Amino acid sequence: MAKTNPGRFFEDYTVGEVIRHAVPRTVSGGERALYHALYPARHALYSSDEFARACGLPSAPLDDLAAFHVVFGKTVPDISLNALANLGYAEGRWLLPVYPGDTLRSESEVIGLKQNSNGKSGVVYVRTRGLNQRDECVMEYVRWVMVRKRDLEAPAPETVIPELNKVIPAEQLAVPAGLDFSNYDFTLAGEPHRWGDYEAGETIDHVDGVTIEEAEHMMATRLWQNTAKVHFDNTARPDGTRLIYGGHVISLARTLSFNGLGNAQMIVGLNGGAHANPCLSGMTVRAWSEVLDKADTNAPGVGAIRLRLVAAKGGAPFELKGEDGKYLPDVLLDLDYWALMPK
Amino acid sequence: MAKTNPGRFFEDYTVGEVIRHAVPRTVSGGERALYHALYPARHALYSSDEFARACGLPSAPLDDLAAFHVVFGKTVPDISLNALANLGYAEGRWLLPVYPGDTLRSESEVIGLKQNSNGKSGVVYVRTRGLNQRDECVMEYVRWVMVRKRDLEAPAPETVIPELNKVIPAEQLAVPAGLDFSNYDFTLAGEPHRWGDYEAGETIDHVDGVTIEEAEHMMATRLWQNTAKVHFDNTARPDGTRLIYGGHVISLARTLSFNGLGNAQMIVGLNGGAHANPCLSGMTVRAWSEVLDKADTNAPGVGAIRLRLVAAKGGAPFELKGEDGKYLPDVLLDLDYWALMPK
Amino acid sequence: MAKTNPGRFFEDYTVGEVIRHAVPRTVSGGERALYHALYPARHALYSSDEFARACGLPSAPLDDLAAFHVVFGKTVPDISLNALANLGYAEGRWLLPVYPGDTLRSESEVIGLKQNSNGKSGVVYVRTRGLNQRDECVMEYVRWVMVRKRDLEAPAPETVIPELNKVIPAEQLAVPAGLDFSNYDFTLAGEPHRWGDYEAGETIDHVDGVTIEEAEHMMATRLWQNTAKVHFDNTARPDGTRLIYGGHVISLARTLSFNGLGNAQMIVGLNGGAHANPCLSGMTVRAWSEVLDKADTNAPGVGAIRLRLVAAKGGAPFELKGEDGKYLPDVLLDLDYWALMPK
Repeated sequence: MAKTNPGRFFEDYTVGEVIRHAVPRTVSGGERALYHALYPARHALYSSDEFARACGLPSAPLDDLAAFHVVFGKTVPDISLNALANLGYAEGRWLLPVYPGDTLRSESEVIGLKQNSNGKSGVVYVRTRGLNQRDECVMEYVRWVMVRKRDLEAPAPETVIPELNKVIPAEQLAVPAGLDFSNYDFTLAGEPHRWGDYEAGETIDHVDGVTIEEAEHMMATRLWQNTAKVHFDNTARPDGTRLIYGGHVISLARTLSFNGLGNAQMIVGLNGGAHANPCLSGMTVRAWSEVLDKADTNAPGVGAIRLRLVAAKGGAPFELKGEDGKYLPDVLLDLDYWALMPK
Repeated sequence: MAKTNPGRFFEDYTVGEVIRHAVPRTVSGGERALYHALYPARHALYSSDEFARACGLPSAPLDDLAAFHVVFGKTVPDISLNALANLGYAEGRWLLPVYPGDTLRSESEVIGLKQNSNGKSGVVYVRTRGLNQRDECVMEYVRWVMVRKRDLEAPAPETVIPELNKVIPAEQLAVPAGLDFSNYDFTLAGEPHRWGDYEAGETIDHVDGVTIEEAEHMMATRLWQNTAKVHFDNTARPDGTRLIYGGHVISLARTLSFNGLGNAQMIVGLNGGAHANPCLSGMTVRAWSEVLDKADTNAPGVGAIRLRLVAAKGGAPFELKGEDGKYLPDVLLDLDYWALMPK
Repeated sequence: MAKTNPGRFFEDYTVGEVIRHAVPRTVSGGERALYHALYPARHALYSSDEFARACGLPSAPLDDLAAFHVVFGKTVPDISLNALANLGYAEGRWLLPVYPGDTLRSESEVIGLKQNSNGKSGVVYVRTRGLNQRDECVMEYVRWVMVRKRDLEAPAPETVIPELNKVIPAEQLAVPAGLDFSNYDFTLAGEPHRWGDYEAGETIDHVDGVTIEEAEHMMATRLWQNTAKVHFDNTARPDGTRLIYGGHVISLARTLSFNGLGNAQMIVGLNGGAHANPCLSGMTVRAWSEVLDKADTNAPGVGAIRLRLVAAKGGAPFELKGEDGKYLPDVLLDLDYWALMPK
């Protein structure tokens, strides 16, 4: 009996089933320090316990994307080990901050299946939930991936395509209990721009660039216990390159966006995202953002801002797609998210 | 008076002497996070405080090999700074889990000496003990190394070769107090295979590979405060390569073995080990295991399993030695250890 | 309105103004572990809570240079983003140890300005203070940098050059409350040499070398939230190299100096320092020290020692400057500091 995990294939999924993912993880100040070593993370709420307390939280949470990576990593052995492509994200919501000492695990519910017309693969939709040690849901998101079939003769399942919000309505965003930006210290936060200073349609070039090294993205990806071979094994891809985990690019772009969006403190919603082109070591990653929308919240001094975050390895800022409607070859990431900002 | 440490030479050791090694170290969640960033560590007992508690421990211990590396690293300045070769390990026993907040130091007793017939070097046998802040022994092991003589005219010491167990008898393995696998959650642990599912003689190809970077092995080796020059200084070896600390290969192989041995949770015995060939950055390391033996324990639901763990940088799995009885050139590590597994 | 930080230019500084720097940071065991992974740090007082307690401190502080880097990193966006050169340090004093859990922020007072004769740039002198969550000053230092003018027509400010001590008088050094080296354990510390064993004029070759990787210095520099582009972006300099943060070289040299100065435990004063030549990845860094002075303190068993610490990427130890009085091309760092040592 083979004891290693071959991963699931398309015909192994059933709509409605819930997969409990393995290897729960307790996070500590170690994960926080590593996040700050691997990415140029500077958002004050995640850097300083004192700053977080002044904003009504008990201490500085783990960076939202670090929590996402931990939750996401657990799903890889069950969802994307045999994936041909990561197709999309939707309806991502951060529901509770994660603090050092918390233990996270993940579950995914299969919410859609569609076999491809070639009969060799299909699309699997899952809604993944990250749960803490009190079984509270700290975040959830929908992801869909293209997965190979093991047995090309296996019958196609009934096609179920979930209806997903293109954008999370602002009133469904979860503002952490107690969050209060009334006495927000803009000087300590690093930028003077408040929610009212941003307008839909505005674009921001975040200027700074980071050249990526193999050791960095592998350390990051291992830290999240993501086991996809292509990130670690330079014999896994025909050209000998190691494909960088898409989440590494997300974190790079988000932390680079501090320069111009330093007050977009908490990520509370992920409306969608595409990994437009593969990212490899040696590339110098830059980022730009576009303000897509704004909304109010009930929390004191707290506004919500919807942002497009684009990472690119070259080209000019604010260029995204060609005349053919396809992403330009230098674009790595196109992400649509909601963040909370002081008013 | 020269103030730097030239290391000890063969004639500086006396059978029976106890060397107290320098630089005690307090470990924290930082060491744990780094271990998980540097290696694809996924054993649940070391990843989750909650999982550890469900198994009867107060919280997740530091990975057993991380504890080993901390204890080992301290011995380098006194034992192996002038070593020509690391010849073997025996009688390694993990006696107490190490938790964040614990402070470790090391002592080594010289238990054997044998000058080589060439008169230029000799073999030094030491039994090293790792002690915590309560002076409890958390682990011990025997290591023997070939050490140069400073003064070729120094007389040969009386030859003393310690009698060492080839294999630690199962009844001498220390099961941590309170350990109870009766309610072990195989889903959260990541694999369904229990102690009863493994048979002596069975071999497991762990499938996954990791390509090593210089930055990774140097960070790991520094973290364990191992000071051997060959790991850090590319001018220390004639070919300009940095030799990777053997323990780095051990941790890589062990963590890769999760895929197929995810329930071999705690390492409790090290019967022997050989670093078959040097490991260098750029190599892609794979691992396979062979079940050597099984034994029962008195702890509820806990069985012991004896495993051969082999790391290789190429070749086919399960190939170890050539017709000449020597390790094949692709083999990096051949380790023989005991682990605890749920029944 | 551009929202990104262009940095300050020479004409943006006024003598007497106090700049509160952004992004406070809470440190944990994670920062400590990373410091020990990035540098060969072995000073026992910073490695072991037990050792620190035996010396009268509540637990092991964060390494003094790690505290310096955190304080320094915050100043970069306001002081040196448009700097052409980092010209010098003076009057650096460590006033309180920093412990895991502490939150640090920084302020700088502009204490001097001098426009260069070319009218294109000028020298800015700042006194920077690191403050903890109780608004206690944990360290301070003076730095001066050459900063570009944005507007070459901007009038030159009145020249103010601060009077700075070339050497901090020993009686102005702050010995941490409670520090007591009366029962110092030289074996655990790793070296037998005490304060009385060192003489002014003595030189020590620290022997060991470390070859630097890009991933390492970038992780370090990000951890300190230093945002200078030249460290991260290989398109920022014409030759495609990433300039290594000078503080990385300081920490490398200091930790290498353990071999020969393992009992120079606490850094309490920074008299001056020069980054003699740029440091790049791939270089193998070595260090040597010269004892410049010694002084007594009032704390039991505690002496002060003034050291020159030199890092080089080649050449012979103890060579510093050529006949022209300029640093030799292999010299990377020339630092003058005070440390505390057991008597």
